[in-house]
Amino acid sequence: MSAEAPRRRGRPARAAADDTGPGARERILEAAREQFAERGYDKTSVRGIAKAAGVDPALVHHYFGTKDEVFAAAIEVSFEPALVVPALLDGPRDAVGERLARFFVGIWENPATRAPLLAVIRSAVTHEAAAKVLRGFVLRRLLERVADGLAVPDPKFRAELAASQMMGIVLLRYVIRVEPLASEDPERIVAEVAPTLQRYLTAPDLRTP
Amino acid sequence: MSAEAPRRRGRPARAAADDTGPGARERILEAAREQFAERGYDKTSVRGIAKAAGVDPALVHHYFGTKDEVFAAAIEVSFEPALVVPALLDGPRDAVGERLARFFVGIWENPATRAPLLAVIRSAVTHEAAAKVLRGFVLRRLLERVADGLAVPDPKFRAELAASQMMGIVLLRYVIRVEPLASEDPERIVAEVAPTLQRYLTAPDLRTP
Repeated sequence: MSAEAPRRRGRPARAAADDTGPGARERILEAAREQFAERGYDKTSVRGIAKAAGVDPALVHHYFGTKDEVFAAAIEVSFEPALVVPALLDGPRDAVGERLARFFVGIWENPATRAPLLAVIRSAVTHEAAAKVLRGFVLRRLLERVADGLAVPDPKFRAELAASQMMGIVLLRYVIRVEPLASEDPERIVAEVAPTLQRYLTAPDLRTP
Repeated sequence: MSAEAPRRRGRPARAAADDTGPGARERILEAAREQFAERGYDKTSVRGIAKAAGVDPALVHHYFGTKDEVFAAAIEVSFEPALVVPALLDGPRDAVGERLARFFVGIWENPATRAPLLAVIRSAVTHEAAAKVLRGFVLRRLLERVADGLAVPDPKFRAELAASQMMGIVLLRYVIRVEPLASEDPERIVAEVAPTLQRYLTAPDLRTP
């Protein structure tokens, strides 16, 4: 990212013993999650992530590329699409809405996964790069694959409708924290939102344009 | 607001002929809508609004009070609760979801009302004052009154569920602009979201905790 270049310039490449290998990659992701969660998207830099992980910024670029690719990787860990999509599709078709709602509320109720996701939402509203991550990973890689797996018409539109309901819950329950929604039993949120997600994902009437 | 005080200090109170009366109040609201929409919540000041309206900052405080009260007033104009709530409640109970969806999509499809509302959403995720406006006006003064008018149990929770769906549409269609949702025919958005709002607002199964 152009924003990083000038800050890295003149910074001598360090060659610490712990600068490479899978351990370094994990430390970078962990540091990225922490930094994005604590500072938000714009205040976080590849240099800062590298420093927190104890590696050279060049290694961050080597493993992940640009700042928003690091961001995407840090977020994706919260909901490994490769594992989650099959799990959401596995089971009764008429309960996919409930499985999706429970998975979704689950990652938001878990403070470890909530923090970086809050950073995405906060950033996505004001930063195109973060919005792109939200579009690319949450939508394309997770929800659209679920819709595709259900073999329904308009999978993109259905995925976006489902995402809109879940993003709205995030906004009011976890970001703005309106009451009683913010203190409501997570299982009740799942129970009320599941039928909405089910209809968006599988109802035939969404075929009519 | 404390943020304004230092900036107003040393600014001589002006006594222009147009400094008072309903004309001034309207100009202040118009200026506030423009400034909040263009600059966002934190970059907008009572002083800047007063200057744009051609009045003394003291008059802004006189009419509206603090910065977030000006903000609230500027936003409220977009959906006059006193007029909107009865209109939403007037008509078949089983079509209140569609009326709410159509009203909501309508104010968002109208660029004049969309701009200040976008400012609220953008600000609400990062500024408590803006979040408070969203909670107080959109929820308490609009949606909760609709739910109250429907005489259903859990009116607050139902209003928040309905708000979550509409806020999610706003986030994905108008703020993050995901496709195809962002380019979809507004009437189709209304058609797909209406049953969700209807269920949240009137379905008896929301009684079960």
